[in-house]
Amino acid sequence: MTHSGSTIGILGGGQLARMLALAGAPLGLRFLVVDNAEEACAAQVAPLLRADWRDFDALADFARRIDVATFDFENVPADTAHWLTEHTRVFPNPRALSISQDRLAEKSLFHEIGLATPAFAAIDSRDDLARAVERIGTPSILKTRRLGYDGKGQFRLKSPADVDAAWNALAGAPSILEAFVPFERELSVIAVRSRDGEFRTWPLTQNWHADGILSASLAPAPDSDALAPIAFAHARRIAEELDYVGVFALELFVCDGGLLGNEMAPRVHNSGHWTIEGAPASQFENHVRAVLGLPLGDTSALGVNVMLNWVGELPQANPVLAEPRAHWHDYGKSARPGRKVGHATLCANDAAEMRERLLRIGAALGRESQVAPVLAALR
Amino acid sequence: MTHSGSTIGILGGGQLARMLALAGAPLGLRFLVVDNAEEACAAQVAPLLRADWRDFDALADFARRIDVATFDFENVPADTAHWLTEHTRVFPNPRALSISQDRLAEKSLFHEIGLATPAFAAIDSRDDLARAVERIGTPSILKTRRLGYDGKGQFRLKSPADVDAAWNALAGAPSILEAFVPFERELSVIAVRSRDGEFRTWPLTQNWHADGILSASLAPAPDSDALAPIAFAHARRIAEELDYVGVFALELFVCDGGLLGNEMAPRVHNSGHWTIEGAPASQFENHVRAVLGLPLGDTSALGVNVMLNWVGELPQANPVLAEPRAHWHDYGKSARPGRKVGHATLCANDAAEMRERLLRIGAALGRESQVAPVLAALR
Repeated sequence: MTHSGSTIGILGGGQLARMLALAGAPLGLRFLVVDNAEEACAAQVAPLLRADWRDFDALADFARRIDVATFDFENVPADTAHWLTEHTRVFPNPRALSISQDRLAEKSLFHEIGLATPAFAAIDSRDDLARAVERIGTPSILKTRRLGYDGKGQFRLKSPADVDAAWNALAGAPSILEAFVPFERELSVIAVRSRDGEFRTWPLTQNWHADGILSASLAPAPDSDALAPIAFAHARRIAEELDYVGVFALELFVCDGGLLGNEMAPRVHNSGHWTIEGAPASQFENHVRAVLGLPLGDTSALGVNVMLNWVGELPQANPVLAEPRAHWHDYGKSARPGRKVGHATLCANDAAEMRERLLRIGAALGRESQVAPVLAALR
Repeated sequence: MTHSGSTIGILGGGQLARMLALAGAPLGLRFLVVDNAEEACAAQVAPLLRADWRDFDALADFARRIDVATFDFENVPADTAHWLTEHTRVFPNPRALSISQDRLAEKSLFHEIGLATPAFAAIDSRDDLARAVERIGTPSILKTRRLGYDGKGQFRLKSPADVDAAWNALAGAPSILEAFVPFERELSVIAVRSRDGEFRTWPLTQNWHADGILSASLAPAPDSDALAPIAFAHARRIAEELDYVGVFALELFVCDGGLLGNEMAPRVHNSGHWTIEGAPASQFENHVRAVLGLPLGDTSALGVNVMLNWVGELPQANPVLAEPRAHWHDYGKSARPGRKVGHATLCANDAAEMRERLLRIGAALGRESQVAPVLAALR
C-alpha cells in the first residue's frame, strides 16, 4: 500500500488532535477533525467538520471523506464508535475504548492480566458505598465509572463520616470507591501496537500531578531499570487482550517498590508529550503510523527529557524560547482555569545538564514549585 | 509583546511554506499563504488566499489579515514586496530580496564583503558573451540574472563554439557568464539574523547536486573546522550589509582549499532541511521566530545528519519508516520530473552509525548512487 495522501479522521478537536495532525503532515497525511466547537484548537491546522457525536448524517459524511478514524478523546459515546466501524476503519477498536471508558471494567481487566490495583469496589447505591468504606477504609476516593478525567468526577473521603457528602457529590452516578494508596511515585507507560501486533514502548515516564492535573513528566524515569520490564509486560498484555491498535498510556503507582495499575487512556497521552522532541518517533507520529498500518518508528529516548504542563494560562514564552534545547508548545486555546493550554519540553544530555536547565526555567517563570519535584528526582 | 496567535503571511505556497507553518504551529502561530495555485501544498496545513503577485486588492486583504509577511519563494516581483512594506511588516526586506534575485548584484555584494567568486561577467548582448568567453574561457556557464533556480535558466559552454547556442538558449535575457570552477566540495551556510541583529548559524552543511538539483546534504560538514568560521563570517557580513531578518542560505564552493561564493537564497533552504530533526531549533522555527521578533532558538547539531532529496517522485516509504532515527517527509505534491516532492533525514550519533544507516537505506531504495558520495565523505 501507499499511505501518501491518506486521510485520518479524528473524533475530538483538542490539542491531541492538533499534535496528531502536525505529526502526520510530514508523512504526507491529511486529517479531518470532528468536533462540535468552532474554536476547537485542532481546526487551526486541519479541516474541521462541526458536528455532535450523535449527528449520524454528519458522521456518514465524515466516514466517506476519510480512510481511517481515531480519537483525541476517549469519551466518545460507544454507540458512535460502533456505528463508525460499520462505515470506516476505526482504531483503537470500540471495545478497547469502552473498557477504558469504564473504571470498573478497566480495573477488572488489570486484574485479569495480572496487574494489581488499589482496593476498589463497585458503587451503585448509598448502601454499596457505606459497605465499601467499611471494607476499604479511608482515605479513599469515590470516582464516577465514566466520563472522569483530570480529577473531574471525583470525591475524596477523609473519614467514614464523608459517605453522604461523597454520595451526594457524585449525584448517584455509577461509581467505584478506590483505596487511597500512599504511593512513592507515579509512572506511565506510553505504548504503541501496530495493526499486525508489533508492540513498542517509549522509556518509562515519571509523573507529578497538581490539583488532579498532570504538572510535570520526566523521561526516562530514574531508577526504573527493574520496574520497566514489568510495566511494559503489563502494557503488552493489556494491548493484546484488547487487540489494541495505536498509542495508549498505562498509569501506574509505585507502592512498597511494586506496581499498581491506576488507569489507562486509550489515546496519545499528556505524559507522552516529551516524545515530540525527546524520541526519534513521537507518540503522535507512531499513533498515525499504527492506525494506517505503517511500520512503527523508533521509540528510544534521546537523552533526558522533562515536560512542564501549562494549565490555566501560559507563562512567559521568552525564557523558554531563549533556553537551549527547550521547546515551546502553545495549543492556540484561550486561557481558562484548569484548562491545558500548552506545555514546554526541556531536553538535555544528562541529569546534571537538565538540573541547570530546570533551575533557570523555574526561576525565570516563577515556577519553582512546579520544577521542584523533578529536580528532587534528578538528584 | 506576546506572539501567541500572531499570523504570519507567506508569499508562495510550496513545501517551504508548508514546513514553516508546521514549525510555527507549536509556537501558537497562525499562517496565511498566498499562491495562485489551488493545489499549493502548503494549503494542506494552512489557509490559502488564491491570488497573483500583482493582484493588489487581494494583497491588501492579505496584509490586513496578517501581522508580518515573509516568503517561501525569492522570485516575488520587487514591486510587490515594496508595495507590501507600505501595508505590513515584511522580512526579509525588499532590498535583500532584490539583490539575491539578481545574480550580478549578488556576486557584486559578495566581492564588496570580501568573499571571492568564480570569474564572472555581465552579459547583455551576443558581443558581451563572445568577449566574456575570450576572457573567462570554457568550460563556463551562462545563467540568466533573474528567475533561475534548480539549474533552470542555465547553459553550459564546453567550448567557444557554443557562444551562439548559449545566447539562443537564454533568448537574450540579461545574464552572467561564470567560469566553471573545478570545486572540491559544495558547502552551505544556513544562517539566521533576528530583528535586533543577533546572528546565528547552524553547523556548515556539505551538499551534492544531481542534474542541477540538490541530491544530498550532510551536516556537520566533515573536515570543516578551519573553513567554518570563515564561511560564517562571510554570511554575517552579508546579513549585516543587507540588514537581513530571517533565515538565508549562502552556497559556497571549496576550491584549492579556499572558499568561493556561489549564490545566496533569501529564505529557508533545501540544504537546511536536516535541521528539522538534527538541531534543537530548525531553520523553519528560527525563521518564524526571527520575523516575529522572538528570541532565536538553539542552532547546534545533534549528532550526524544526512538529508536525501526526493526529486520527481517518492521512493518506497517503508524502508525509511522502519529505519531507526530516520524521518520521512512527503510534501503532498504530485509526481513530476524535476519536482522536489519530499525528502528523508537520517540522524546518527556518529559517522560509523550513519554509514550503516546510509548503506541500508541506499540498498533498500535502490538509491546506491544517491548515497555514494555521502558515504565517501564519511570515510
